[in-house]
Amino acid sequence: NSARNYGISLGVLTPGEWNAITDVPGVAVGQVTLKEGENIRTGVTAVLPHQLNLFQQKVPAAVFVGNGFGKLVGTTQIQELGNLESPIILTNTLSVAAGMEGILDHMLFLEGNENVGSLNAVVGETNDGYLNDIRGRHVKPDDVREAIKIAKGGPVIEGNVGAGTGTVCFGFKGGIGTSSRKLPESLGGFTVGVLVQSNFGGVLQIGGQPVGKILGQYSYKNQLESADGSCMIVVATDAPVDHRNLERIARRAIMGLARTGGIASNGSGDYVLAFSTTKEHLLTSGSTATLANDQVSPLFLAAIEATEEAIINSLFAAEDMKGKNGRIVKALPKEKVSALFRE
Amino acid sequence: NSARNYGISLGVLTPGEWNAITDVPGVAVGQVTLKEGENIRTGVTAVLPHQLNLFQQKVPAAVFVGNGFGKLVGTTQIQELGNLESPIILTNTLSVAAGMEGILDHMLFLEGNENVGSLNAVVGETNDGYLNDIRGRHVKPDDVREAIKIAKGGPVIEGNVGAGTGTVCFGFKGGIGTSSRKLPESLGGFTVGVLVQSNFGGVLQIGGQPVGKILGQYSYKNQLESADGSCMIVVATDAPVDHRNLERIARRAIMGLARTGGIASNGSGDYVLAFSTTKEHLLTSGSTATLANDQVSPLFLAAIEATEEAIINSLFAAEDMKGKNGRIVKALPKEKVSALFRE
Amino acid sequence: NSARNYGISLGVLTPGEWNAITDVPGVAVGQVTLKEGENIRTGVTAVLPHQLNLFQQKVPAAVFVGNGFGKLVGTTQIQELGNLESPIILTNTLSVAAGMEGILDHMLFLEGNENVGSLNAVVGETNDGYLNDIRGRHVKPDDVREAIKIAKGGPVIEGNVGAGTGTVCFGFKGGIGTSSRKLPESLGGFTVGVLVQSNFGGVLQIGGQPVGKILGQYSYKNQLESADGSCMIVVATDAPVDHRNLERIARRAIMGLARTGGIASNGSGDYVLAFSTTKEHLLTSGSTATLANDQVSPLFLAAIEATEEAIINSLFAAEDMKGKNGRIVKALPKEKVSALFRE
Amino acid sequence: NSARNYGISLGVLTPGEWNAITDVPGVAVGQVTLKEGENIRTGVTAVLPHQLNLFQQKVPAAVFVGNGFGKLVGTTQIQELGNLESPIILTNTLSVAAGMEGILDHMLFLEGNENVGSLNAVVGETNDGYLNDIRGRHVKPDDVREAIKIAKGGPVIEGNVGAGTGTVCFGFKGGIGTSSRKLPESLGGFTVGVLVQSNFGGVLQIGGQPVGKILGQYSYKNQLESADGSCMIVVATDAPVDHRNLERIARRAIMGLARTGGIASNGSGDYVLAFSTTKEHLLTSGSTATLANDQVSPLFLAAIEATEEAIINSLFAAEDMKGKNGRIVKALPKEKVSALFRE
Repeated sequence: NSARNYGISLGVLTPGEWNAITDVPGVAVGQVTLKEGENIRTGVTAVLPHQLNLFQQKVPAAVFVGNGFGKLVGTTQIQELGNLESPIILTNTLSVAAGMEGILDHMLFLEGNENVGSLNAVVGETNDGYLNDIRGRHVKPDDVREAIKIAKGGPVIEGNVGAGTGTVCFGFKGGIGTSSRKLPESLGGFTVGVLVQSNFGGVLQIGGQPVGKILGQYSYKNQLESADGSCMIVVATDAPVDHRNLERIARRAIMGLARTGGIASNGSGDYVLAFSTTKEHLLTSGSTATLANDQVSPLFLAAIEATEEAIINSLFAAEDMKGKNGRIVKALPKEKVSALFRE
Repeated sequence: NSARNYGISLGVLTPGEWNAITDVPGVAVGQVTLKEGENIRTGVTAVLPHQLNLFQQKVPAAVFVGNGFGKLVGTTQIQELGNLESPIILTNTLSVAAGMEGILDHMLFLEGNENVGSLNAVVGETNDGYLNDIRGRHVKPDDVREAIKIAKGGPVIEGNVGAGTGTVCFGFKGGIGTSSRKLPESLGGFTVGVLVQSNFGGVLQIGGQPVGKILGQYSYKNQLESADGSCMIVVATDAPVDHRNLERIARRAIMGLARTGGIASNGSGDYVLAFSTTKEHLLTSGSTATLANDQVSPLFLAAIEATEEAIINSLFAAEDMKGKNGRIVKALPKEKVSALFRE
Repeated sequence: NSARNYGISLGVLTPGEWNAITDVPGVAVGQVTLKEGENIRTGVTAVLPHQLNLFQQKVPAAVFVGNGFGKLVGTTQIQELGNLESPIILTNTLSVAAGMEGILDHMLFLEGNENVGSLNAVVGETNDGYLNDIRGRHVKPDDVREAIKIAKGGPVIEGNVGAGTGTVCFGFKGGIGTSSRKLPESLGGFTVGVLVQSNFGGVLQIGGQPVGKILGQYSYKNQLESADGSCMIVVATDAPVDHRNLERIARRAIMGLARTGGIASNGSGDYVLAFSTTKEHLLTSGSTATLANDQVSPLFLAAIEATEEAIINSLFAAEDMKGKNGRIVKALPKEKVSALFRE
Repeated sequence: NSARNYGISLGVLTPGEWNAITDVPGVAVGQVTLKEGENIRTGVTAVLPHQLNLFQQKVPAAVFVGNGFGKLVGTTQIQELGNLESPIILTNTLSVAAGMEGILDHMLFLEGNENVGSLNAVVGETNDGYLNDIRGRHVKPDDVREAIKIAKGGPVIEGNVGAGTGTVCFGFKGGIGTSSRKLPESLGGFTVGVLVQSNFGGVLQIGGQPVGKILGQYSYKNQLESADGSCMIVVATDAPVDHRNLERIARRAIMGLARTGGIASNGSGDYVLAFSTTKEHLLTSGSTATLANDQVSPLFLAAIEATEEAIINSLFAAEDMKGKNGRIVKALPKEKVSALFRE
């Protein structure tokens, strides 16, 4: 995985096999990248809690709004009913409607959904308009359907891919990043996985190194720069936790973002969507066995660490990108940064 | 207006000229009704705080979620930034994406919005799938754009129109309803207007008369019936109130719904969106003079009464409707009901 | 019970044996009334989910804030952890600290609590300062302890008693009121019980009859009157529902308040605290079986009806009261009101 | 100030004159330390937005709950009315009632408050029961009154003082800490000041250095340790911001806590109370000029940095403490830590 390849390991807990959200058993990710001509730099990233019929087998879920300047749809029903019945689609700000249509195109026609007349499509976004012709609304419902269809477990491609194709983070090229933590058996043995679409600003710090300061690139260094942008964060776990504790876990993801130097500026849409995959916890079963409150703190730490590392990974995986109007966003100078950790 | 035509007047405050949301100066309503063949019974209702460029002249706004089983989009940004930058579109559950696209088609191309790459489209819905072929997604972005374009002040058509074409309320034909209250000058002289898309259940009561009980039609009368459904409520006022007090006003609208016998059942998406139109309060002005907390109570009463009456008006204005699969939903037996008030 | 004694029955569901919060098995109520000299008209009402050690056997709970002009303590922990570990104490606004001390005096010294150094005391209040020398802070921790100690099941005294001794509601004498609903077996057979401390204003309506209008007594009839005041509402149920659905039930209690004509005016502290008593749901058990979302709607209706009737009962049970500075608050003219229902 | 004395400076913005919450003009701090015998290690810290009659001159305020396992009282009214009318008292968990009584003893008898019968006392706490005989409830209302009375501007004593006398943070001695940031004139020139009562756990990091890891002292290093505890954070600013933007600023304080390695574990009560002191913003004035949304981002960064540094300062200012049952909590090994920054 990205940052660890450069000798940088964050936190005190241990990643899972892929250091990815897919380390949570059953979770699948699918991505469609739209990189066409000089101006189209966008795409779709789909995260699926499982690959069965999600409407029929909903999973416990919660949303936490770090800063609500954003267009994430589906939030109020998740908060009210405590569950998720749709794939999670990430895309660009003006393509949220395409995301919803794509979800409906997929879900309404699954076997067993013949009479479904109400479905809570969940679509998040960040604004890739600096590198992408966002007003062109190039993402189509079919791209969304495709991302859902090709979703699979295992390693996840990071960086300039899917919904991260055109994003910018701390002034460097951002993108899709992922990470995970597997708790020791003594703390329950559960896995927490995180996937982010990084597109925000602040004063970058990595593992406590004030990288942004050292590189002289940060928000408010002078008046001209802004920390705006957004971060969509998806947190998955196989721990049997209900909506209430999932919301608490979601809140910790923003603490992970804070550790990277993000400040959730006014113009940033920083959202976390957390879900649990545990079968026995499927709400349709009518019976649940959930963790007690005092068993969730290790999951909090795991969510913080995995979010921090997923964001840093998105920076390490991303490469220079030339896009709209010939604009270029450079990748993080990885060698320079990793050198800081070898000194 | 509907219920008052039948001799039924609710509450202790006085309606404005049209007893409609358009009594709030500047507010405009536009509706497109889709009634085609045997199965299409749906439409679009647009409410505009003013007819200038809303993105450039945002208005203070707030959302209150009575019961969040619904797909209202745009909520988190309204709550975070305290303002509204889009027309409010009401339609059916599976046409929310069309609503968003229609708003973008309209707003992105207004003069002055040439560089807008982020817009918080606001679309609410209720489920008209009993009378309408909702899975056909017959509402198109152009219908939405049309509703915005034809919006105007003055009297508002109620009942089987726009987003209310196919809705059902308390087992009777529901639809669009509206009402308003104008406070006496001694209480500030402000106007509160409400528009609803009624599509929910419970035990109907009108002006304290247990109409549902008398007519023998109510939820849980026997096991088979459900109170599900939804109610979208839009509250407008010209009082200079900020986001926080608008949210408090929005909460009172659900109290108005309660007075009609609605119970906000599990499956009901009961949402309130409240906004203020006061020019001096436009956030772009940078300076505001808002009502003190202790001046808002009369607005609370006005919001309660206008919401109650808007719902009742939707029932009085609606007529029998035949729709999908030959299903028929009868209108409220108005003469029978009004007779209760003459006894 | 009060209103039913006068031939007035509200709603469509059936009350439990005592038409009281104590119809929920295990729930106990204890009240201490302080009526001394000419100026002391206050007291304490304690509601206990069960009579075991509540810190050791917490119950699922939730709070909903209808209007937050009030001093209810304990809310954030209930919302975070989803449970209640303290008796619920109701008293007057300036005696909340005495309520907390009384709870600690009781709870810290229960067997098994020898090492407890943190306890989330829950104390609600309304302002009885019109009839009571509230600034005298006459409620003492020992009064609180006494109310907890004498709490028991069975019939509950209503009206001018405990925390309701000095309260005023709709301009009439308010006080403690209670009511319950037992669902038919086909809807689960659960019981919902409500206890209120009524001390608020608006335009009184009873079973849909606009009583306030008829009697010419309501808020904003002229400029001088205010609807301020507060209402504390405690909702108990034996249905196995978790924090999230208890919060939804709590929200419905405010809809019950709305049906009495309350408007939750700016100066009103309208709070609902809901809890479940189900043994298998005790969080310490580590395993739960909770109702599915779509099974809770009947509980919503029950909560609405029981809250409405509890408030009306508080008015029917209360009697004329003379208090501070010789002020007199008259009881509701019960015969006159009940005559409206016989016409 | 503490950490800066050791050559450690955090963030990119500049502190105010005292690097303290009192850099916000008008803000005063008063502390009473109870260190008696072998077992009493507790106290009171009072923060006053201004030294006039706070009930008569309320200030805009907001609360954000990072993790609600705590007993902060006064939250719902602050959130509803958007203002603060009481000094802010910090003390230990079981002395919150004493805090309320002390506030009432002070406030009810101020000139102009002769008829006040309702006052929203604000008292926060953390649990100092490891070093302090917390069950003894040694803080008395008079201690609280004294802390209010002696409050003043200028330098603030940090470490083992007032409400921080007995607290523990990251396994080291915690306590009271404070810091501030003064924005450059180009960003408005406003000051943000923070005061914390640090009493929580996690994996300490300072300026990005993984100090906890290096020192081998952190939560979940082995199974035995817990990250529980709490952090009360008070944020003051002279920027003209209303409740809504104050709540957004309050949220950033938790991001500052995250940067120190705090994880807001299950048992931690992590609360932020933010207020503005601007005279023209006093709600009684009826007219306000507030910052636009896009002007608040620099305040966010300031709140994050000042919170981070206030926590670190609490660790640098605290000294070894021996308390209840002879227990000893060592201070942070400051020389060892500061050496890490000189390498």
